[in-house]
Amino acid sequence: MQKLGKQTIKFDTPPTIVDCACIVGPKEADGPLAKFFDQCLENEMWGEKTWEKAESKIMKETVNMVISKSGVPSDKIEYCFAGDLLNQCISSSFGLREINIPFFGIFGACSTFVEGMSLASVFIEGGINCALCAASSHFCSSEKQFRFPLELGNQRPPTSQWTVTGAGASILSRDGNGPYITCITSGKIVDMGIKDANNMGAAMAPAAFDTLMTHFKDTGRSPNYYDAILTGDLGYIGRDILTDLSKNAGYNINSVYNDCGVLIFDKEKQDTHSGGSGCGCCASVFSGYLFKQLKEQKLRRILLIATGALMNATSSQQGESIPGIAHAISIEIEK
Amino acid sequence: MQKLGKQTIKFDTPPTIVDCACIVGPKEADGPLAKFFDQCLENEMWGEKTWEKAESKIMKETVNMVISKSGVPSDKIEYCFAGDLLNQCISSSFGLREINIPFFGIFGACSTFVEGMSLASVFIEGGINCALCAASSHFCSSEKQFRFPLELGNQRPPTSQWTVTGAGASILSRDGNGPYITCITSGKIVDMGIKDANNMGAAMAPAAFDTLMTHFKDTGRSPNYYDAILTGDLGYIGRDILTDLSKNAGYNINSVYNDCGVLIFDKEKQDTHSGGSGCGCCASVFSGYLFKQLKEQKLRRILLIATGALMNATSSQQGESIPGIAHAISIEIEK
Repeated sequence: MQKLGKQTIKFDTPPTIVDCACIVGPKEADGPLAKFFDQCLENEMWGEKTWEKAESKIMKETVNMVISKSGVPSDKIEYCFAGDLLNQCISSSFGLREINIPFFGIFGACSTFVEGMSLASVFIEGGINCALCAASSHFCSSEKQFRFPLELGNQRPPTSQWTVTGAGASILSRDGNGPYITCITSGKIVDMGIKDANNMGAAMAPAAFDTLMTHFKDTGRSPNYYDAILTGDLGYIGRDILTDLSKNAGYNINSVYNDCGVLIFDKEKQDTHSGGSGCGCCASVFSGYLFKQLKEQKLRRILLIATGALMNATSSQQGESIPGIAHAISIEIEK
Repeated sequence: MQKLGKQTIKFDTPPTIVDCACIVGPKEADGPLAKFFDQCLENEMWGEKTWEKAESKIMKETVNMVISKSGVPSDKIEYCFAGDLLNQCISSSFGLREINIPFFGIFGACSTFVEGMSLASVFIEGGINCALCAASSHFCSSEKQFRFPLELGNQRPPTSQWTVTGAGASILSRDGNGPYITCITSGKIVDMGIKDANNMGAAMAPAAFDTLMTHFKDTGRSPNYYDAILTGDLGYIGRDILTDLSKNAGYNINSVYNDCGVLIFDKEKQDTHSGGSGCGCCASVFSGYLFKQLKEQKLRRILLIATGALMNATSSQQGESIPGIAHAISIEIEK
């Protein structure tokens, strides 16, 4: 590997993303990206008795789907990296308890999917051949856990985001013809003092900015190196903050930049306020939409920056601010 | 690296554990290992207003201590791997929000410390020079979150374990003279159907057994290769189960095997029933006690198997069983 600056690794052996899969919920199926998702559920329960069990099932079936689509025998997958938003990441541990692959649980809040792909890439650089990455979230289990019982029908403020019901999974391999993960820029925790748990975009945007600027500085690249720069789930408000911060720092990212939370829902028709969020947002938008664009060479170089808000319900009740983090990976169709 | 079997990696560049640090609570300070811990707190709050803030402070100060003890400048530490038992791992993210080092949040329940050292070792094999690993738990924040409000004064069944208040941290480096992490055997999720959230030892022992047998098989080693085999926090009941399972499989581990949860408390005097548990158990017993034994060459080869129960309070309420996981690392004073 080549270390660029303090936070970026350029790989000697860039892993190929062999295949991706995603399963999403009914609201996501009504959104503008519906046709790209592998499977859309008709309801949030999927025949299970609880939202948590439904989320575990989404995780499980998404992972089964990516293994099946990829044609990689599951006994060739050496490690699994997975996480989610539920307390103690139970969507992953229950969803994947039968997978029979060495398992590393990870928690990066909504940055989890890219955190997993970063770790898996370093494992491949270290010498392994194949790894699986997955992340999920569920609107109902998240609302219940982080905010209020859904049955209360609380009003949501305009800054709030809508947690995506869905999961994404990818298989990374030492062998293959791309798309390649060529670089990773792994983020530090950044806490600018935002305390409003209904404004995650504002809490996470400074972390995305820090990672993006570090990526440009470490690699010597500028926004126009990429066909697209995508953040995970800053939503409309966070996207605007990141655009402004970047502009003030001398980088005009307007022409290439968008956010997965902005792309996944139709703001006018779907009443999702500031856009989508959750581990499943970036995971499903990448696995469903962006990966296919890369495979078809409609996109040739992208920077995916997943952002996470590292708080919980108790920390907000105790008056704490919301630390953010952002992990970036460059995905290119040429090494 | 050399892959041994499907789950074990033997490193070409075994990382040195440069230094460790640990801070524990007052109950741990009354236990048999008190003299080995770097700092013992007089009470569970450490001047903070909540248990969660106290746990974050323990995490923060333990990490500051290991950086200070090691003499490694913090800007030479390339990555930090940390996790804990609190929902969304807030002890780590709040405790380390000022650390200014690229951060990977991990969740392996009580296996977190060894999970972090496993990931950091692979990063060093991949090419980086230095990483930090940390894990924490806190009796009061855990009881509140997983079981009942402490104020209720609920009786605890004899199978229950006492969550350790404490944190451990280690710095791993490409350079150094050992002790070395020579191998890792990373565990799969194992769920044998145990549903009693007050009997974690029984829930986790099958995972420890799976990883231990895999380690022996992959490496060709037998129990007598090691001066000590230590599980993370199976406690008395889990320790006995693992001993029995191993005996039935043809491995007599009696003479070298013990458990960190057994070592940390005095069962008779401290009323801790089946022993200690929590991410902080294995982390503080390793960082405080075992690491010093290795440095003094009183132990020359150990196998540390941290075990985790991948459940949460909701999953138990919903009638789910408890998936377990166990990650093992070999630590040897010679490469």
